[in-house]
Amino acid sequence: MPTISLRFDLDGGRLGPGKIDLLERIDEFGSIAAAGRSLGMSYRRAWYLADELNGLFGRPLVEKHHGGKAGGGASLTELGRMVVERYRDAERATVDASKAHLTALQAEIDASRGE
Amino acid sequence: MPTISLRFDLDGGRLGPGKIDLLERIDEFGSIAAAGRSLGMSYRRAWYLADELNGLFGRPLVEKHHGGKAGGGASLTELGRMVVERYRDAERATVDASKAHLTALQAEIDASRGE
Repeated sequence: MPTISLRFDLDGGRLGPGKIDLLERIDEFGSIAAAGRSLGMSYRRAWYLADELNGLFGRPLVEKHHGGKAGGGASLTELGRMVVERYRDAERATVDASKAHLTALQAEIDASRGE
Repeated sequence: MPTISLRFDLDGGRLGPGKIDLLERIDEFGSIAAAGRSLGMSYRRAWYLADELNGLFGRPLVEKHHGGKAGGGASLTELGRMVVERYRDAERATVDASKAHLTALQAEIDASRGE
């Protein structure tokens, strides 16, 4: 099924579906490593992206917890949740506004394949 | 200034701002090479993208003209123009629907920098 994705080019860095997916998974799993793994991302890559997001906003979106039985974990801050919500809201509006065009373009492709 | 960009993931391939910019420049310059050059793209890369678009839709979006004094050129087909129009229309709707979120996210970044 055809899909639409959205990227914000902000002064300081980019925010697209990969980073937003990662934030959501961190919120779900409580761990950067587990979040990354669930997206097929290396541990190193997941940490890099989390640090990049924290750097972009100058305050943490992802908070790392140290110690404890599980050897620490991670959670989203209020700012992290707000960023996810705004992105997903913009994405929903984009899909609504663009779906007729997406369908028309896919129909052109399918027609040429005789589907 | 922060901007938003849109990508269509269609069954068969992707359609994003790079390919759409190239199509518009081909329409403007009447040449794949000149269009690519104006976007800082190699001749090879511009031809590759034009061929990829033609392959995705199974019919040409870019038509190559051979011979003549200028050694040939290129133009957009009706399908090529339609694809550009639909993408730009979806993009305008996306920008309208998302600009409040984009502005709010940029404000968070700027606040942390003391701007």
